[in-house]
Amino acid sequence: MNVTVPPERHPDSPPDQPVRTLVARADHTAVTLDQTRLPFDRVELVLRHAADCANAIASMQVRGAPLIGAVAAFGLALSLRESSDDAALDAAYATLLATRPTAVNLRWALDRIRARVFSASPGQRWAIAWREACDIADEDVAINHAIGEHGATHLRRLIAQRAAVGRPVDARTPLQLLTHCNAGRLAAVAHGTALAPIYALHRAGVPLHVWVDETRPRNQGASLTAWELADAGVPCTVVADNAGGLLMRQGRVDAVIVGCDRVARNGDVANKVGTLLKALAARDAGVPFWVACPSPTIDPASPDGDAIEIETRSARELTHITGRAADGRLCEVQLVPDGVAGFNPAFDLTPARLVDGLLTEHGMVAASNAGVAAVLTALASSRASP
Amino acid sequence: MNVTVPPERHPDSPPDQPVRTLVARADHTAVTLDQTRLPFDRVELVLRHAADCANAIASMQVRGAPLIGAVAAFGLALSLRESSDDAALDAAYATLLATRPTAVNLRWALDRIRARVFSASPGQRWAIAWREACDIADEDVAINHAIGEHGATHLRRLIAQRAAVGRPVDARTPLQLLTHCNAGRLAAVAHGTALAPIYALHRAGVPLHVWVDETRPRNQGASLTAWELADAGVPCTVVADNAGGLLMRQGRVDAVIVGCDRVARNGDVANKVGTLLKALAARDAGVPFWVACPSPTIDPASPDGDAIEIETRSARELTHITGRAADGRLCEVQLVPDGVAGFNPAFDLTPARLVDGLLTEHGMVAASNAGVAAVLTALASSRASP
Repeated sequence: MNVTVPPERHPDSPPDQPVRTLVARADHTAVTLDQTRLPFDRVELVLRHAADCANAIASMQVRGAPLIGAVAAFGLALSLRESSDDAALDAAYATLLATRPTAVNLRWALDRIRARVFSASPGQRWAIAWREACDIADEDVAINHAIGEHGATHLRRLIAQRAAVGRPVDARTPLQLLTHCNAGRLAAVAHGTALAPIYALHRAGVPLHVWVDETRPRNQGASLTAWELADAGVPCTVVADNAGGLLMRQGRVDAVIVGCDRVARNGDVANKVGTLLKALAARDAGVPFWVACPSPTIDPASPDGDAIEIETRSARELTHITGRAADGRLCEVQLVPDGVAGFNPAFDLTPARLVDGLLTEHGMVAASNAGVAAVLTALASSRASP
Repeated sequence: MNVTVPPERHPDSPPDQPVRTLVARADHTAVTLDQTRLPFDRVELVLRHAADCANAIASMQVRGAPLIGAVAAFGLALSLRESSDDAALDAAYATLLATRPTAVNLRWALDRIRARVFSASPGQRWAIAWREACDIADEDVAINHAIGEHGATHLRRLIAQRAAVGRPVDARTPLQLLTHCNAGRLAAVAHGTALAPIYALHRAGVPLHVWVDETRPRNQGASLTAWELADAGVPCTVVADNAGGLLMRQGRVDAVIVGCDRVARNGDVANKVGTLLKALAARDAGVPFWVACPSPTIDPASPDGDAIEIETRSARELTHITGRAADGRLCEVQLVPDGVAGFNPAFDLTPARLVDGLLTEHGMVAASNAGVAAVLTALASSRASP
């Protein structure tokens, strides 16, 4: 493997803190990994300008709803360092918002920065925005830590249920989880969302194993989730997206946990394309299907899933793929015959009725108007009482 | 494209016959295409010995239940040319049977040859077996032609239903079909099974469009179905396996038609992994889900799907993929990080309750004990009255 083995902790992470995927440095740059180079090369990406942030999001060097939000926040802050009047603020906001259409965290983070600096004089804006972006990043870490703890509690209940029916969780028959796409630490500032409970249980020494959907066409499962789970020592196996139905039918999955890109007020979930198929399979097989949902991923402006725009991306992501050739170099190969069209919707919508719970930093809630409203209420009261 | 454009008809096909994927030649060789070289290279594969046939099946140079059956039949015949006593017959039978475990046509074809030659003297066996293999191939063509006609009738009913609700099928809004894997002419001696009705309608000038699941991990959809549909001038679009749920939910699929590798007596269907997920999505969205099922694919020895062995193939099929590099050469690239395991079940089981019909050469029947029994009865009576 022609790759530097990644350090267990990011060099800038203090020893008592989790590995951060995005680090704000004292020189006012933000540093992350170029995820298009994973899993074979660990290449640092230094974000110095707003354009760097916009490019990183649009080109999927960074991806994952929480990470996109944080990078956009730093991007807007960096734009204000370059030019901070109202027109410049509006222009940078619009540019960053246009990078990806589906993840609501993007808009949420940009709105938050804009609201924070709007009443400040242009001269003060840059410093305020940078501080706010750092707060957004720190809050993401705290949110995901809480999701991890709540999720671990629910997974421990599944373990108890298995024990009650004579299928104890042990090293030979670990707790079996399935996830789609990457909702791990690489999709967030730290911990991840869907993977946060898995990391929490693994740290506690609970035997578990993760089935990782490869997640075509961008293979975020095969290249990112598998990489970060293996890096953390969590046993995992990559499967084709097609295999999950069989695994669930065979009783080889105790729970499905996925992340989300946007959750509507009624609990409908927009997430990586293919999520709906896993939700249907889980329901049919009686497997719990949970969506890890940090509250910033809830979109109060979307009454239901039909209100959520589904991003269509280039068909080339489907017709071509990049991997490591025998000589160690990255090589892009064509998979589909010339002249045949491809269609590449990046997300799908899972109706709330198929979601057994939204796993938020405030605990597991029903995927329903009431459940989502409870999270928004808890969020409002936690903001009211700092 | 560094490919010879395939001739519209195989050079050996008479002009009034469909293109055959497998041709028995007068020199007692069988000729087919090396499907591992498609879609970028059209390489003829000449089967001269039993070992050629066994290798071709095991290495997936030929695949698709009906084609596997026919190639195995020629393989057993060719083995008898080399050595025709009972011990040699048994050995060749066992070798060919072991090449792939799931497709029941393989056993069916081998049993048929063995039964036909068993009472003959060793000196006569080879010629009898070769004739029987030719009959098996010819019957496959006839069966699939009938499936095409029956399927076209049912698709015309969908067209009438669309017209009745004000969504006429026309060039702008063609009939929309979705298929998984390759159950086209490349999977059979001619016509295909799931694609036979599509070809029949297309020949009749009905506007239609096929969503082609790429069908990971072997990409039979992207590389074979897309190739043969494009070759026949049928409009098609490749999608990730993950996209079908969204397409159905959006009302962009009028019917799903897939093939099968084995059908149990109760109508449970073993087919390419991922079929179950499409069946679940179709049921949830109210889209008809049909399984094209030539009667030799029915396994009277399997009472239900749980009796069907699911083949697990090498994880390398998942962790690596071959495509065409920018320089035009085929190149295998690695997709999954070193040290991460893969699991590669080749098939899954779709319970009969999710199948809206089995499309056989005797017409569409229910996926149920009664429906399957009706096909077996029709088959027995058609054999009784030659």
